[in-house]
Amino acid sequence: MTKRDSIGIGLMGLGVIAGQVAKVLAGKKEMLSEQVGCPLVLRKIKVLASDLERPVAKELNRRLFTLDEDEFFAEPGIDIVVEAIGGENPATHYQERALSGGKYVVTSNKEVIAKHGAKLLALAQQNKVGLRYEASVGGGIPIIAPLQHDLVANKISGIYAIINGTTNYILTMMAKQGVDFSLALKRAQELGYAEANPTNDIEGIDATYKLAILASLAFHSQVRPQDVYCEGISRLESRDFRYAQEFGYAVKLLAIAKQDDKWIEGRVHPVFIPEDSFLAKVDGVYNAIQIEGDLVGKVLFFGEGAGAFPTSSAVIADVVSAAQDILLGAGSRIKWQLKTGKVIKPMAEVETRYYLRLTVADSPGVLSQISKVLGDNSISIASAIQKESDKVAQTAELVLMMHPAKEAAMQKALKELEQLPVVKKIDNFIRVED
Amino acid sequence: MTKRDSIGIGLMGLGVIAGQVAKVLAGKKEMLSEQVGCPLVLRKIKVLASDLERPVAKELNRRLFTLDEDEFFAEPGIDIVVEAIGGENPATHYQERALSGGKYVVTSNKEVIAKHGAKLLALAQQNKVGLRYEASVGGGIPIIAPLQHDLVANKISGIYAIINGTTNYILTMMAKQGVDFSLALKRAQELGYAEANPTNDIEGIDATYKLAILASLAFHSQVRPQDVYCEGISRLESRDFRYAQEFGYAVKLLAIAKQDDKWIEGRVHPVFIPEDSFLAKVDGVYNAIQIEGDLVGKVLFFGEGAGAFPTSSAVIADVVSAAQDILLGAGSRIKWQLKTGKVIKPMAEVETRYYLRLTVADSPGVLSQISKVLGDNSISIASAIQKESDKVAQTAELVLMMHPAKEAAMQKALKELEQLPVVKKIDNFIRVED
Repeated sequence: MTKRDSIGIGLMGLGVIAGQVAKVLAGKKEMLSEQVGCPLVLRKIKVLASDLERPVAKELNRRLFTLDEDEFFAEPGIDIVVEAIGGENPATHYQERALSGGKYVVTSNKEVIAKHGAKLLALAQQNKVGLRYEASVGGGIPIIAPLQHDLVANKISGIYAIINGTTNYILTMMAKQGVDFSLALKRAQELGYAEANPTNDIEGIDATYKLAILASLAFHSQVRPQDVYCEGISRLESRDFRYAQEFGYAVKLLAIAKQDDKWIEGRVHPVFIPEDSFLAKVDGVYNAIQIEGDLVGKVLFFGEGAGAFPTSSAVIADVVSAAQDILLGAGSRIKWQLKTGKVIKPMAEVETRYYLRLTVADSPGVLSQISKVLGDNSISIASAIQKESDKVAQTAELVLMMHPAKEAAMQKALKELEQLPVVKKIDNFIRVED
Repeated sequence: MTKRDSIGIGLMGLGVIAGQVAKVLAGKKEMLSEQVGCPLVLRKIKVLASDLERPVAKELNRRLFTLDEDEFFAEPGIDIVVEAIGGENPATHYQERALSGGKYVVTSNKEVIAKHGAKLLALAQQNKVGLRYEASVGGGIPIIAPLQHDLVANKISGIYAIINGTTNYILTMMAKQGVDFSLALKRAQELGYAEANPTNDIEGIDATYKLAILASLAFHSQVRPQDVYCEGISRLESRDFRYAQEFGYAVKLLAIAKQDDKWIEGRVHPVFIPEDSFLAKVDGVYNAIQIEGDLVGKVLFFGEGAGAFPTSSAVIADVVSAAQDILLGAGSRIKWQLKTGKVIKPMAEVETRYYLRLTVADSPGVLSQISKVLGDNSISIASAIQKESDKVAQTAELVLMMHPAKEAAMQKALKELEQLPVVKKIDNFIRVED
């Protein structure tokens, strides 16, 4: 055990997360010092000029700030770099520079870890330091550490996760208040739960990054964001929620990863899940991650998946843990143990159940024509609802729930259904996970 | 980092958990070796003569077995002792002997940790080894490690936990099937969810041990089992479940610990909790632990709280972690940081809401007499149901929900109510947590 007067922290960024990290380091100084065995001292903060206008900047010693990257990295006595800038660049470069310089890195940056985690972790090992990223998934919910340590005896077969608070808030509003997507999004933006440009969240991209991180850890095999099938929530309509309820389901944006002897499967898309399942009850901005292992069975982790306070909880825990490792001379204690990459299952091979909503001609024999197309593609109908005929247009709404089928078969059937004269429109198509 | 050919394991016990641990060590040899960096080798198993009749004994090399404690501890090359005997004695002595001999200890033994954890952890530190007990609470659910590491930046204010699967199974049966306690217990025993002598589980003692462990960790202050108020579920009747449902509540055996600036509060007893809360939905043998921290907000951990498979998941994780620490020369890395003990709040000072079920005379003015007694003790009634008069006995059933009151006031009021001639019987009295 090395004796040290202090462990030095360098902070990159001064946004909501970085600002809160700085506040906690100051406000919980004594408690953290007890945990580590010596004080954690904030030595430098790399900021942008605009950061200096933030209220938190007024609370901090101005001499900590630097606008200059080289000055930041030249600062002596920084043991741990906390990168909380977000985005791929320049954050990736900053992390590389820190690790190459023999500094531990703690980050909340899911995009950098999802895209460059394998390379960065190798760099950390080369330099005998650690890279920690608990805050990159699920805010304050412990999930990276449980996968790295507590569940290590398990062969993980599945991950089912609600890991984007923005979309879960929007879906909860649509389900509970019957509002449209655009209104729910507007409300989420007003409350600060969605960004002005919400694409990353609502199109599932953010969840894809997080799932790639979880799956890589759980399966010891690199899963890249581009290996994850991705579909967002913007095409969901309020009538889909009503039908979901009628069939006993909730609508969620799930991040799903599975592993069998042959394949790894990763996908983010809206699903119907049974309304009495735990994940169905995760509402608003909450997150939940369900892990299935051969020994542990099903375990679930639930909490606030974003926000400055919960995220700072995870960042500070990583800082404390890195500091303890520095004092122990433990180097890069945690490895991202990537074996030879397993084959990623193409989406076409994925088998699920399907919900299908169509506008059809209100005439006899329609259902039999549709079920023939489905049947020709080996898809059978589990139940059907026909509703609300439009007398003027002479159309009806037909909702079908299918038995399990392969995605490829379903996509082919959809194309064929589009060609049927009795099918006026394929309104929506949502996968079902039982 | 020390180079080692192997890490030696000594196993104490060959019951369901120990047997499963032995199987995992053999069956997942290669995977565990990769995680640790060298093989984990099972070197000795301390058994009782009766253990040799177990089926698992036939699968293991007979030369591993010893009936003799001294022979076990004399075995060279044991780095980690896994104590999975259970019970206070001789397990406490075995752990002491192992730690004093410079061996790491991994245990699933909640009774030993709850009663002697502080002493044993001090002994571990003296001997520069570690004592790990993830499996002592919540089976395979990661909860000890999250409290030790992931939530370390938080001031924890509350723990609300369902941590006894036996009682939760019984309560779920009583709620869902309307059966009596005795029948539900019998069913649980038939299924192996309750022991032949179920006292430890049904009277809340097991949950008390587990809560003492969680509260000590979360509050950095020693909470002993005797500091936890304890009431079991045996006096619950099926009509209490019906009234709970009528008021919108579920009935659970909760383990609750809270901390404020003045006091630590610990209690295990049946409660009414809102039926739409997460904990209300934790059914059967599942466990869930909800932690509230100043940064992280509310986080919840859910999974199977017992059983050989999940428990072995936690034991093996601790073994891997201990082995990694041995290779790092990390010694006793995790401290049970006990500050000067905070004052334990006497149960009399605890404030909750109450549900009260009484058999009363079916005559006018009864409610006013009862509410006067309650009012004299500063307890006010939130709602009342009067039902099912027994024409022959001229009695009625009166169910009251109270506004928050202190336990001392409620106990005094109960004594006074018993003296009222119109009160024939105080049938039940259950605390309510909103």
